[in-house]
Amino acid sequence: MAIYTDLALESRELNPDLEGVTEENISLDRISISRIAITTREAAQKLEKCIGNYITLDAPDLSARPLDLFEEMTNTLTSELSNFTDKLNDDATILVVGLGNRYITPDSLGPKVAEQVYVTRQITAYLPDAMDHPLRAVCALTPGVMGVTGVETLEIVKGVVKSIRPDLVIAVDALASRRTDRICTTLQITDTGISPGSGIGNTRAGITRDVLGVPVIAIGVPLVVFASTIAKDTISMIADETGLHRDEEKLLKLADKVINENIGPMIVTPKDIDSVVSDMAKIIADSMNRAFFRNHYDEVRSLIA
Amino acid sequence: MAIYTDLALESRELNPDLEGVTEENISLDRISISRIAITTREAAQKLEKCIGNYITLDAPDLSARPLDLFEEMTNTLTSELSNFTDKLNDDATILVVGLGNRYITPDSLGPKVAEQVYVTRQITAYLPDAMDHPLRAVCALTPGVMGVTGVETLEIVKGVVKSIRPDLVIAVDALASRRTDRICTTLQITDTGISPGSGIGNTRAGITRDVLGVPVIAIGVPLVVFASTIAKDTISMIADETGLHRDEEKLLKLADKVINENIGPMIVTPKDIDSVVSDMAKIIADSMNRAFFRNHYDEVRSLIA
Amino acid sequence: MAIYTDLALESRELNPDLEGVTEENISLDRISISRIAITTREAAQKLEKCIGNYITLDAPDLSARPLDLFEEMTNTLTSELSNFTDKLNDDATILVVGLGNRYITPDSLGPKVAEQVYVTRQITAYLPDAMDHPLRAVCALTPGVMGVTGVETLEIVKGVVKSIRPDLVIAVDALASRRTDRICTTLQITDTGISPGSGIGNTRAGITRDVLGVPVIAIGVPLVVFASTIAKDTISMIADETGLHRDEEKLLKLADKVINENIGPMIVTPKDIDSVVSDMAKIIADSMNRAFFRNHYDEVRSLIA
Amino acid sequence: MAIYTDLALESRELNPDLEGVTEENISLDRISISRIAITTREAAQKLEKCIGNYITLDAPDLSARPLDLFEEMTNTLTSELSNFTDKLNDDATILVVGLGNRYITPDSLGPKVAEQVYVTRQITAYLPDAMDHPLRAVCALTPGVMGVTGVETLEIVKGVVKSIRPDLVIAVDALASRRTDRICTTLQITDTGISPGSGIGNTRAGITRDVLGVPVIAIGVPLVVFASTIAKDTISMIADETGLHRDEEKLLKLADKVINENIGPMIVTPKDIDSVVSDMAKIIADSMNRAFFRNHYDEVRSLIA
Repeated sequence: MAIYTDLALESRELNPDLEGVTEENISLDRISISRIAITTREAAQKLEKCIGNYITLDAPDLSARPLDLFEEMTNTLTSELSNFTDKLNDDATILVVGLGNRYITPDSLGPKVAEQVYVTRQITAYLPDAMDHPLRAVCALTPGVMGVTGVETLEIVKGVVKSIRPDLVIAVDALASRRTDRICTTLQITDTGISPGSGIGNTRAGITRDVLGVPVIAIGVPLVVFASTIAKDTISMIADETGLHRDEEKLLKLADKVINENIGPMIVTPKDIDSVVSDMAKIIADSMNRAFFRNHYDEVRSLIA
Repeated sequence: MAIYTDLALESRELNPDLEGVTEENISLDRISISRIAITTREAAQKLEKCIGNYITLDAPDLSARPLDLFEEMTNTLTSELSNFTDKLNDDATILVVGLGNRYITPDSLGPKVAEQVYVTRQITAYLPDAMDHPLRAVCALTPGVMGVTGVETLEIVKGVVKSIRPDLVIAVDALASRRTDRICTTLQITDTGISPGSGIGNTRAGITRDVLGVPVIAIGVPLVVFASTIAKDTISMIADETGLHRDEEKLLKLADKVINENIGPMIVTPKDIDSVVSDMAKIIADSMNRAFFRNHYDEVRSLIA
Repeated sequence: MAIYTDLALESRELNPDLEGVTEENISLDRISISRIAITTREAAQKLEKCIGNYITLDAPDLSARPLDLFEEMTNTLTSELSNFTDKLNDDATILVVGLGNRYITPDSLGPKVAEQVYVTRQITAYLPDAMDHPLRAVCALTPGVMGVTGVETLEIVKGVVKSIRPDLVIAVDALASRRTDRICTTLQITDTGISPGSGIGNTRAGITRDVLGVPVIAIGVPLVVFASTIAKDTISMIADETGLHRDEEKLLKLADKVINENIGPMIVTPKDIDSVVSDMAKIIADSMNRAFFRNHYDEVRSLIA
Repeated sequence: MAIYTDLALESRELNPDLEGVTEENISLDRISISRIAITTREAAQKLEKCIGNYITLDAPDLSARPLDLFEEMTNTLTSELSNFTDKLNDDATILVVGLGNRYITPDSLGPKVAEQVYVTRQITAYLPDAMDHPLRAVCALTPGVMGVTGVETLEIVKGVVKSIRPDLVIAVDALASRRTDRICTTLQITDTGISPGSGIGNTRAGITRDVLGVPVIAIGVPLVVFASTIAKDTISMIADETGLHRDEEKLLKLADKVINENIGPMIVTPKDIDSVVSDMAKIIADSMNRAFFRNHYDEVRSLIA
């Protein structure tokens, strides 16, 4: 059994002294911002993450779901996204890709974000005089809702990117973390895109700058923990507590009996996962809209929404 | 943390010597049939199950998903259901209630069964001469797909039952089991209906003969295990293995740290739960259609499907 | 071919001098309000409408879809609905029934209204102390989305009404009008409920006070015109214009050739019907929420929406 | 008002003596097959259709919806499709594009066909040894279900075609015909692809061989008639019958009053359009599966379905 996590922050926690990694932490009132940069190939290999930047927003109080903290989280995420989008031209094209399957609840984050993003590309293309100023041309794609099509998600994304040539791609995906208390309280933004094999979906290949030829930002939220991770963590904790490290091997085998994976990997997720997904999808979509449209946010909102 | 299970079979396993319970087991080639009858109030209280009969079909090989075993399971379930439906009149009215929410995957079993049942009630009512023999009047209800309506599932079911006066109600629901290897390999049929608080949904009251005034059969399939159950089982197993029973209390507290339930109960479920639900829904719906229509199955199938 | 219309206003236009009908018209700036009361059995029979009151809100400018007129229409409809709901107790139970099939676009008005109504019944039932004042217990039902179930819409509605005993039922349905310029510009409210055979759906029986035992308000919007109606109207107009009344019979037969109804009745509807339905559903749902909750509207809105 | 039709057969009927058009008609028992070839630019311009071949299958008895005629229609369509697909390699890649919007019923034909096609491309790609013979790699795309995305249908199709390089693209679309008796009884297959502005959807550009760089077959079924077409046809027929041709202009203006198009074009469609769409979608999908997989049809069916 492996410890599986899509969060660079958690990989870092497991390897705190590793060279080739820089870390910077900021504590706001109820949100912690961690900026991790993986700079060497060796560190990337050890952490099983790509070279690049990883920003984690962590707000433990979110589990109580207070409305004002949602707003704070939105503002913080807007600020972080703007660091990427402010450099773009005023009339840049941005493609939002909502990965995942709308009909499997823990995997429906991407589609739910995509459907709340303010799509302006058809306006800028066909009604250029509707605005008296340039406007970001935002469009959205949810390849997963096309069901079993025999066309890979990556092939669809590559094809659309070739067709419309966006200046930036932002992919949204559900993630697996190591601890269940990260579900619904944590958000990760990275400029490494979607790594091959990451997330809880089925991307056989990654969605990255190298593959698409344009910059790719990935935004992810942990919504599941792999059961094997929990089992291993429990055993390790017990071994530490009781000093029974020599039994650790045997105990791991016992845990195997409890979490039977005959029908494939088991995941641990909140029973009421749909509320969590809705809340996080809204935070992400709202932040995108504010970051993309900045001063024109209200104008676009009354036009689109 | 409690051990939570909707399977009478598992409750029985935890209390093997309890009085007021009879048990009979039959082993077919790849399917085991267990018939448990809870006969006294004390036993019912101890097992946290209602007085009545519980039939469990268990086929461990189903996790490999072999097509011929699906067929065997369907035949076995058809036979068991017929024990209940053969006593009904040839023109009896049967109401199938698919409990659960179609849009939360582990909870979508009920709706997926309801949509595959051959509905004949409008034919028997409006085209009585279409057939030259009496026919069961089968109808289906999926109260959960109406989303948040402010009307309780039970109120809808009670109301419809008063309106159409079926001779039998069959409710289908997703269950929680104690072990993950029961998911996708086990099926429970009981004449006690749906007990209050059972399943993984939110039925505040039960759907039983006492409440509805007509016999209620419940068919359930375990699709989740509560994470707290797994943790407790792991600790107990470790305590047994290492002899560290005095530490059991402390270990349970440690496990609490790993499975954090700040956002409500956590469930363990297969990552590819949608295939499991589809397979089980088809087995149940096919069995119902064969049990309801018996000799007329082919005729009804070509009419409806 | 018959002239078919669900609008009492249009029936009245065809029979302007009929006794047993009172009519009152008010012209607001861009909305006309017509109040028609059918008071005798003979008039009811002639107009093919039930005895009772019919309020029609007509705003021809709505076809251009100006946002401020949507708001005016909402205010006007709120006012008219309040005439019915203000008499209810502060803690009355109101059941909204959204008739129609969500997946057939011209018939999806009811379900789309039901899903935007603020449902409060579960709050008032289970969290009575959440409010420091009484609150209307509003709930919603969309029987049609349960698909082909073998249970009639009326049986479901009757059953639920028996179960929860609302003080008022408001049914929303798509209607057929005589003229295509009524689509998207007209709204009818009546205290006669849903008449048998009305609307464009398949209600074999009516949903009325007599049937349910509680008052029933029906709100309808014309979304289709039956093609046979258009043909007849065209012929009549041509006959009037050219004086060729003796040919009218023969011309009607010719028109039959053009509108071939071998596969059942043909309807005329806007190609972009989905925008029309969305707009009207929002107007109706917003008006309901404002009428139901009056002074508490903002409070309920922040709680629910 | 214009006469609008997507059916080459109807355009031909209006211009029976036009040069540059060849026509061949075959009458089977209950199905007529018409093969029209438009060969010159002048004829193409006059008929408002592209140069190419148009095959129309016409079965007037289909409106009674007899099951055996569905089967005959499927066999006939399979045969016609095979004329295009038999020339492909045994391991050719075929992309099926289901145009239209799944949630607007007359426009849902494409998506409903795409979801019934046997998709094999992921098998041939990842499990090449699953078969002991080559297999067509079939995949499907339904761009319209991604809703309002700011990415044009054509851009998505172009992009995917560039990505996966199919040997053939088959696009399915709903059409507008001139006569209502063509709805549900007629099917058109053409090797000209989807012409710009055709169908009832919103394709601003065409999906043709010139645009995609691969052969494109289009299969269409008339599901609506534009109301303006009906009006004009009625007037013309009346003018012919009564000899009042000088009044034709004035009568057309009168008809305008009856079919008011203030909210955009009006369409005439069967009230129970969903059954028609379901039936036709099944005929088309079944024919595709049989034509694509020929001898291997049963094998693929048991694997996929």
